[in-house]
Amino acid sequence: MEEHDDSDIIEHHVEEEMEKSGAFVESPSDREACCGTQSSHRLLAYSDALISIIATVMILPVAHTKVEDNEELRQSVQLLLTTKIAVYLMTFLIVTVAWAAHIRLFQVIVRIDDCLALLNLACMMLITFLPYTFSLMATFPNNILGILLFCGCVMVIGVIQSVIVLYAFSRPFLLNEQIQISENQIFYKRHILKVIMRVPIMCLFASIFSFIFFQLSYVILAIVIFLPYISQFIKWCRSKAIGQVEETPDSMLFYTYLPNEPLSKERVEAFSDGVYAIVATLLILDICEDNVPDPTVVQKQFGGNLIAALQVYGPEYLAYFGSFATVGLLWFVHHSLFLHVTKTTRFMGLLNTFSLAFVGGLPLAYQLTHEFPRDSQNELEAIQISCVIIFFAGIFQLIIWVVALYYEQETLHPYVRYGGREHVFMLAKLALYPCVALGTFFLTCILSRFSAPIFHLMEITVPFAFLVLRVLVRIGLALLRLIFCPNRANLKTIVEEEVSETSVPFNPLIT
Amino acid sequence: MEEHDDSDIIEHHVEEEMEKSGAFVESPSDREACCGTQSSHRLLAYSDALISIIATVMILPVAHTKVEDNEELRQSVQLLLTTKIAVYLMTFLIVTVAWAAHIRLFQVIVRIDDCLALLNLACMMLITFLPYTFSLMATFPNNILGILLFCGCVMVIGVIQSVIVLYAFSRPFLLNEQIQISENQIFYKRHILKVIMRVPIMCLFASIFSFIFFQLSYVILAIVIFLPYISQFIKWCRSKAIGQVEETPDSMLFYTYLPNEPLSKERVEAFSDGVYAIVATLLILDICEDNVPDPTVVQKQFGGNLIAALQVYGPEYLAYFGSFATVGLLWFVHHSLFLHVTKTTRFMGLLNTFSLAFVGGLPLAYQLTHEFPRDSQNELEAIQISCVIIFFAGIFQLIIWVVALYYEQETLHPYVRYGGREHVFMLAKLALYPCVALGTFFLTCILSRFSAPIFHLMEITVPFAFLVLRVLVRIGLALLRLIFCPNRANLKTIVEEEVSETSVPFNPLIT
Repeated sequence: MEEHDDSDIIEHHVEEEMEKSGAFVESPSDREACCGTQSSHRLLAYSDALISIIATVMILPVAHTKVEDNEELRQSVQLLLTTKIAVYLMTFLIVTVAWAAHIRLFQVIVRIDDCLALLNLACMMLITFLPYTFSLMATFPNNILGILLFCGCVMVIGVIQSVIVLYAFSRPFLLNEQIQISENQIFYKRHILKVIMRVPIMCLFASIFSFIFFQLSYVILAIVIFLPYISQFIKWCRSKAIGQVEETPDSMLFYTYLPNEPLSKERVEAFSDGVYAIVATLLILDICEDNVPDPTVVQKQFGGNLIAALQVYGPEYLAYFGSFATVGLLWFVHHSLFLHVTKTTRFMGLLNTFSLAFVGGLPLAYQLTHEFPRDSQNELEAIQISCVIIFFAGIFQLIIWVVALYYEQETLHPYVRYGGREHVFMLAKLALYPCVALGTFFLTCILSRFSAPIFHLMEITVPFAFLVLRVLVRIGLALLRLIFCPNRANLKTIVEEEVSETSVPFNPLIT
Repeated sequence: MEEHDDSDIIEHHVEEEMEKSGAFVESPSDREACCGTQSSHRLLAYSDALISIIATVMILPVAHTKVEDNEELRQSVQLLLTTKIAVYLMTFLIVTVAWAAHIRLFQVIVRIDDCLALLNLACMMLITFLPYTFSLMATFPNNILGILLFCGCVMVIGVIQSVIVLYAFSRPFLLNEQIQISENQIFYKRHILKVIMRVPIMCLFASIFSFIFFQLSYVILAIVIFLPYISQFIKWCRSKAIGQVEETPDSMLFYTYLPNEPLSKERVEAFSDGVYAIVATLLILDICEDNVPDPTVVQKQFGGNLIAALQVYGPEYLAYFGSFATVGLLWFVHHSLFLHVTKTTRFMGLLNTFSLAFVGGLPLAYQLTHEFPRDSQNELEAIQISCVIIFFAGIFQLIIWVVALYYEQETLHPYVRYGGREHVFMLAKLALYPCVALGTFFLTCILSRFSAPIFHLMEITVPFAFLVLRVLVRIGLALLRLIFCPNRANLKTIVEEEVSETSVPFNPLIT
């Protein structure tokens, strides 16, 4: 017993020493554990994953709407489909607004502890419920229940976020370094709380008005959602009209909580990755669930011939591979684009949201492509819709790049600012999908009889085009140089030079 | 025109300078762009997201199986359900095996370029198709088509991975530093190719045998999947039987491609986050799709009373909130656990996979809980199944911690090795869910009439228990100290001391 006590004391002693030295240890992870705080990295990754799933969830009701070939039914189905697509797009926008607010909150709070993690989970739970309340609003526009539920959720989210802010400010070591060293933390706290509570208070008014004159509530809600963009647009117009307004030094104070503050690039990437991943697998989810034939049906209808039974689903497999490849390649372009970007302005974030919203519609478009009988008007329409969706998903990515180039001082890595070959290559990558989609669209207009083969040919060739794009750009550039600087060596040597340049083993890590 | 040419030349000059200096720039991101290579971070994050979705996809057919209350039908439904659950678990295992192979491949290849990114996407597409082939195998066990498709996919994945390896070794700057500086790269290349091709070659044999004696094919496939675990188990048994076998220096050579090499902790976290996020939102996906009532139905059946119409779905909302909270809290425990872990051994990875597989079943269990009439035998069974699933999901997390403690030298941060309060706190966190689940299970056995209220009470109290857990542990520890070291000060001061210790602002960053 005596011995046991002894070892206990020694252990305790060691522990105390660890605790004392804890504050002076260099490794951040060592420091974290001592005070029960943690880097917020993984919490944010999990939140991003949840939010990206929720943002894309409303595409499922759209995708599962059965389109009949009966003309009369089709009218009502089209109306239903339009409503559902509108719901999907609005949900996507609302959820991304909530996500942007979440980003800004956790740009102020950079460390978390258990309590904050749990509060954040509660907040997430309510955010995941928003799409449902919104779809109630869309289905029953004259019933105030949807508005009340939506406003209720937003208000509770606001209260939880306020608690998070109050908690974090009572433990300043959780905060951003800049606020930690600032003299007027209370000022910050009030400002952030004011920004956070603005939306819930407007929702409170909306829910009160819903009892009196519910149309007004919708107006208030629309203002809530679009306010940041509208205010920024007005500010932008004003700055253009009366010349460049100097940044007041005061605004620097609120650095981390201004609405036009760039979004964290990591979180934009994580959110985009989540959306691309969900969208790429949406069709396989359906295939795994619905397209395994029943053994008795196979026995009865196909005489036990499984291959014949599966051939019925052929178009669906094709749709899956097509949409996976397209979404994957759009992800690839997005990935290449964000390699060059250092900061994401809010406007770039908005463009990214638009691009992602179109990407979300892709599997649906591909599914429609293969659902109609060959050479029907419906098939042609579905193929053209697919082309339009691909075009917009790609063109918004291209606009992100153009905007990034416009503000290149703050948004791009130094090496891209000077133009050159990487520029051209990036542009080629970004332009490939819009160009191909546009080309396919017009080709299907002209050669409407061959629309399906043209579309499939496009699906197959684009991945290979990406593979050889670098070589194509090289040859194109070399050709241009040869035309404009003919006094340089001939084409072949330039191309060889270009190619050999990359195959040199580049290995400064060894030294 | 002359001017334009001039600026062109200047621009080109600058670009060349940038390229020259590129090799000597410190910033890794600058270096990356010059040779068209990139850090593989985001590619791996995207792959993890895709794989985690695919791993959990087979729970959907299980979740959507309609359970009838008719006794006779229920028998066949239960059989169907058992098959589907088996398919789900096997798919989960197969996909995680593919994921582990992917991890090891990209521990060798640490940098990527466009070509590797595209090849990886092709590989991902085939991996996402595996669950479907597997579910064909399970539905038609006597038909060889499932086997052939599965083997075909695995073989193509093998070929693509071999191409990735060959490509990466032809551009050594893409490789792991250790292999980059090694003398015998060719040796490495052969070894890795041998390891990669082992599985596809066995699948080739399985597909050939399927024409002759297809039962053998299943045996071969089972061997393929469990081989790494079996071989490790044999090795472990042997080492225990004939004493600790010294690590041969040779095996150090293959450091990054040995099957018992620890998995990358970041990727285990990313994969787990993906699974938790999908599982947490599974029920809301269904709710958003199915539980928006049709306006005409509301008008006819409920006289336009939306609230009455929605009350029908009440249990589903409850199931959603319950499962979201449970999955979220299990994620929270997982997150706390992996904060202390520095390396994940393969065995810990396996335990994590088991834990995640049970987590995947949670939403289903919760859904069942609320699907049956109150106080029926079915409801009791469903509640008990939920408790069992929660128990196993939690207990596997606890075992991970125990295993990590067993190999603490290599798996844990130094500060946890010495025990102390953080240890106890961690243990309390990990033990909370298994204990509560076990308690609820036995309570429902005894008080079977009150099973539903007990279960709901558990759902509500657990989140609050997590919130006050730190305080509870503090008080418990203080009590223990008071009992075993009565010569120290009284309880109240110890507790106060403990509490005050944390509220001291801890802020070494300011200085």
